[in-house]
Amino acid sequence: MCAKPVDTAAKSLPEGGKARRVYLQLLDGITRGTYPDGAALPAEQRLCVELGVSRVTLRRALDALEAEGLIDRRAGAGTRVRTPQQKPKMSADFSTLMPQLVQMGHETTARLLSFSYGVPPAAVANAMRISPTALVQTATRLRLIDGQPFSHLTTYVPEHIARNYSESELATSPLFRLLERSGVEVETADQSVSATLAGPEVAGHLGLSVGAPLLTLNRVVRDAEGRGVEYLAALYRPDMFKLQMTLSRVGAGDARHWEPVVNPTRAEAAE
Amino acid sequence: MCAKPVDTAAKSLPEGGKARRVYLQLLDGITRGTYPDGAALPAEQRLCVELGVSRVTLRRALDALEAEGLIDRRAGAGTRVRTPQQKPKMSADFSTLMPQLVQMGHETTARLLSFSYGVPPAAVANAMRISPTALVQTATRLRLIDGQPFSHLTTYVPEHIARNYSESELATSPLFRLLERSGVEVETADQSVSATLAGPEVAGHLGLSVGAPLLTLNRVVRDAEGRGVEYLAALYRPDMFKLQMTLSRVGAGDARHWEPVVNPTRAEAAE
Repeated sequence: MCAKPVDTAAKSLPEGGKARRVYLQLLDGITRGTYPDGAALPAEQRLCVELGVSRVTLRRALDALEAEGLIDRRAGAGTRVRTPQQKPKMSADFSTLMPQLVQMGHETTARLLSFSYGVPPAAVANAMRISPTALVQTATRLRLIDGQPFSHLTTYVPEHIARNYSESELATSPLFRLLERSGVEVETADQSVSATLAGPEVAGHLGLSVGAPLLTLNRVVRDAEGRGVEYLAALYRPDMFKLQMTLSRVGAGDARHWEPVVNPTRAEAAE
Repeated sequence: MCAKPVDTAAKSLPEGGKARRVYLQLLDGITRGTYPDGAALPAEQRLCVELGVSRVTLRRALDALEAEGLIDRRAGAGTRVRTPQQKPKMSADFSTLMPQLVQMGHETTARLLSFSYGVPPAAVANAMRISPTALVQTATRLRLIDGQPFSHLTTYVPEHIARNYSESELATSPLFRLLERSGVEVETADQSVSATLAGPEVAGHLGLSVGAPLLTLNRVVRDAEGRGVEYLAALYRPDMFKLQMTLSRVGAGDARHWEPVVNPTRAEAAE
């Protein structure tokens, strides 16, 4: 089973083309603060001269930046780098990295892309501390906010746990809830965050160009015996999802150090 | 002032070329677990058939993956996806996001790329809650581990604080130490993590291809009055730097929730 790629925001700039080069140069300027959040970009005519490209090429690059939510273009008002307030539609509580899905009144939904049983990749078996020949359920889901995909999730769950819930339940409920309902005693989780590029398949599903940047999160959830009960490989659109936290500097003298400010009323969500 | 780009690991694949496409397809496979960490890639001959490219093209893609630390190639032993144990040379305590620079016996150094006084980008002034016309010191540094650059740091510090330390001190000491020595009473920090692509300049400094993925961290450090005393825009090579944390599930019943496991003996470092 494979869902049709979402094409709402997909603007494909051929790699190696002039438009892609201009796109990367403007992205570089946005990232490095030459074109800071909220600021107006130079007029199109000036940008064409600065970057040595035609209006058509510039506009294709701007189309891609707009599709990825990095700029706003309004007739008569020029082009502005999007202010941070408009950008991240989702954020995660940094002290736990558990995204808060039930915030800001936005509706999130999930779409099941694939669902199967088989042996896990060696690294997944290794991280979960399960036999490399043990059967696991592998599921790939998209998570959407207001109908737009912002994360691509691949989860691995040992078969004896996964048999407690159905494919259709997985499409509608957070996996975490299903695990707890299955009697799993979740004890710890190890997480790691990094960055990668969107390959053709993921780019299609998330409505991005191939080669667009993605935030990655890998998580192994363990039970009281240290056995892996879930392995999550998550890919997030960085324009729609950020990890945020506040630290407080506490203590005195040599004992002074940073501590995360934890929001005790945070919603609990799984991915 | 602009340091010469490091060319040790830079393998430039022209965007749009066949080698770049193959590179992205293999990267996709590594990211999504088709070629999991530690696993052998199919033999070159088979990959050429699968991907429909010549041996020369395949090897250029493999060169780039190797240069970015994603695969190991050994004569007679084939090509393996690098295991996680070999990959991240640096990691950050996730509960604070303060990288632990003094770990694993590796030597880290810094290289000052630029140093100047001027008005900050509007978004930086806004985040720091300082006047958009106030002078700030802008410094760009590379941080290296065992001589190899892994992060590109741009910092903004209000002039009246920055005048307390010199350009050469900034090249050798973590900024955080210099701020504290300057009498700044640091109180809170707001941080946000995301992903972006390397533009031409940053790619050159970090020894990456243009368009390679980067992990980004933006941090505003504030004093007791809420005024920004430092704004940091950091870019990290994802193959050399990961954010990692362990969570523990605590409490009972409805009050059961995740809490970060904080390592109380962690080293304190600034960027």
